[in-house]
Amino acid sequence: MNVLDRIDQPTLLLDTEVTRRNIRRMAQRAQKNGVVFRPHFKTHQSAQIGEWFREEGVEKITVSSVEMAEYFAAHDWKDILIAFSANPRQAQRMNALAGKVRLGVLLENVDALQALQAAASADMQAWIKIDVGNQRTGLDWQDVSGVAALCEKVKQTSHIKLAGLLTHSGHTYHAEGKEDVIRIFREGVERLTSLRDVLQLKGISGLKISTGDTPGCSLCDDWSGIDEIRPGNFVFYDAMQALAGSCSMEEVSVALACPVVAKHPERGEAVIYGGAVHLSKDSVLVDGKISYGLPALQAGERWGAPIPGGRVDRLSQEHGILKLPSDVLEKVKIGDLIFILPAHSCLTVQVMGEYLTPQGEKISTFNKPR
Amino acid sequence: MNVLDRIDQPTLLLDTEVTRRNIRRMAQRAQKNGVVFRPHFKTHQSAQIGEWFREEGVEKITVSSVEMAEYFAAHDWKDILIAFSANPRQAQRMNALAGKVRLGVLLENVDALQALQAAASADMQAWIKIDVGNQRTGLDWQDVSGVAALCEKVKQTSHIKLAGLLTHSGHTYHAEGKEDVIRIFREGVERLTSLRDVLQLKGISGLKISTGDTPGCSLCDDWSGIDEIRPGNFVFYDAMQALAGSCSMEEVSVALACPVVAKHPERGEAVIYGGAVHLSKDSVLVDGKISYGLPALQAGERWGAPIPGGRVDRLSQEHGILKLPSDVLEKVKIGDLIFILPAHSCLTVQVMGEYLTPQGEKISTFNKPR
Repeated sequence: MNVLDRIDQPTLLLDTEVTRRNIRRMAQRAQKNGVVFRPHFKTHQSAQIGEWFREEGVEKITVSSVEMAEYFAAHDWKDILIAFSANPRQAQRMNALAGKVRLGVLLENVDALQALQAAASADMQAWIKIDVGNQRTGLDWQDVSGVAALCEKVKQTSHIKLAGLLTHSGHTYHAEGKEDVIRIFREGVERLTSLRDVLQLKGISGLKISTGDTPGCSLCDDWSGIDEIRPGNFVFYDAMQALAGSCSMEEVSVALACPVVAKHPERGEAVIYGGAVHLSKDSVLVDGKISYGLPALQAGERWGAPIPGGRVDRLSQEHGILKLPSDVLEKVKIGDLIFILPAHSCLTVQVMGEYLTPQGEKISTFNKPR
Repeated sequence: MNVLDRIDQPTLLLDTEVTRRNIRRMAQRAQKNGVVFRPHFKTHQSAQIGEWFREEGVEKITVSSVEMAEYFAAHDWKDILIAFSANPRQAQRMNALAGKVRLGVLLENVDALQALQAAASADMQAWIKIDVGNQRTGLDWQDVSGVAALCEKVKQTSHIKLAGLLTHSGHTYHAEGKEDVIRIFREGVERLTSLRDVLQLKGISGLKISTGDTPGCSLCDDWSGIDEIRPGNFVFYDAMQALAGSCSMEEVSVALACPVVAKHPERGEAVIYGGAVHLSKDSVLVDGKISYGLPALQAGERWGAPIPGGRVDRLSQEHGILKLPSDVLEKVKIGDLIFILPAHSCLTVQVMGEYLTPQGEKISTFNKPR
């Protein structure tokens, strides 16, 4: 009996080989380009998967919260960047972490800086968060005086050390094809380096440049001007990345295995045990229609290619309603497994909190430590 | 220092008084109408909150998964209905449960019935899942021969006992106002009772009628023909229910407290620590625009009314980007808490897995048992 036969509820399958290949490829790209590889661990959220990065020479990591930093610090990571605008309410916890590891933090305002400085008894590395077009967080890249003023304030503190300029070009996720991803990625880098050059003229020197989203780092071969990259999603990729061309469907290394519980041929639908609490609710477009992931059938002891024309049409708390072509629907039996390539693997991992490998091994995450 | 001052990361606040009032009100409505009250525990997912229902005389409950049934069975609930179309792969687990509690299951096909019967050593109660218009799961209410055939098959088994007809009028969630909710709710009941009457003529008798979504049970006063109701969301309600008129804003009893980490007045935006991993990604419409919940300011030791014109415009993994009126934005300081009334409380509870009460007590859920 293989691992799939034992599955009786929605289960997040992890293809270890493909995952390790994804890690190795990105590590090699960084090495070839002479850039520090500080992968974002918010996608896999797992100490055990972290070890696979260590095997590829990774020593520096990125996380998205103080809690996640505490988790990975407890698993012997010694150089951690919390890539989330510093939250004054967590200043004490950040200071406690800084006493244990080389801690990087993100600043975009004086308020957070003051809170950190008030709590500081250990050194931490401050990165100024720059908005190069994503319009989520950060100081605008054209706001030279604002950035300069914050840098000067950082330099006046005793424990907060100015490390560099950091951005997340998250708008590559909405790019229109590969060329557009590359254009946005390079534009972001050039905006950061031009800002750095202007700051240098103002006497603020030695700033590093940190960037790197999965689409950009996967597709762009020009890494000039970059000191450090921080992609995360590439470890598993997902339907969104595959449809955008950042990876192939074969490079997507996680899928949610879901039992089929009902069929409604008159509507071209199958119902799976697998809903919003298992997949989360990000979506992609399939033939112009919303789909909460891409359904695939079993192929040997894992999932096969996405079913052409198949969609996850609706999600409720525990149910997924699939639209399937009639010939596929006819073959699918109640009790079979259908596999959903997540629209956005980061969120699916977060809600599931656990992986199952083809070898039957369970891998836990930060969110559900065992 | 009050409880709110100690909050340093996204925290799901639970107003115990309002929650207990919501429970009491629905229990009294059921009692007044002589209907069995079998509340759905998938919203709160908590053994401790379950006790508040017990104090109102509740003995029968509904859950949405076998895992959740196992959790509540371990917390001394003895009459549990799993309101999810039976999954053949979990037949053994359902049978094990049936040996411990009075277990109700949902059937809509012969495949699942056969799997249950093959595993059965203890009696279980079978409800036939009927689709009265929601188009998610169930046999169509007009498919009399299909329903009759399944009932007959159930009657031929030794351990699966035919209990009744069950529906979830989930389409009340998309109703256009209160009158439409009431119309859909009553239509569903009438479709079930007419089906029951036709089945009776075919010799299938004694079928109970189970229904009840939160909008319908909150707004409709005509409960004739109903034997049992199963609303769940009413325990906390949420932004979706308040905007639809199922409850008042004051009856919404959970909100996510989120630290403000950045302000961008030029875009009318504040950024909170609180994203898709805390709120999930359901949304409501505010002034015709998508909003992932309703932002509110602090009022005393809890949250106040939603900010007029305020929206949760975008969510990424850990960030929420709020649109706020300029006068509000001006007052809000970095490090303040902003409170988000969830668009859909069931999903927010599921991702958070824990509540904090005004008394500073943590209440755990099925999803994060301590």
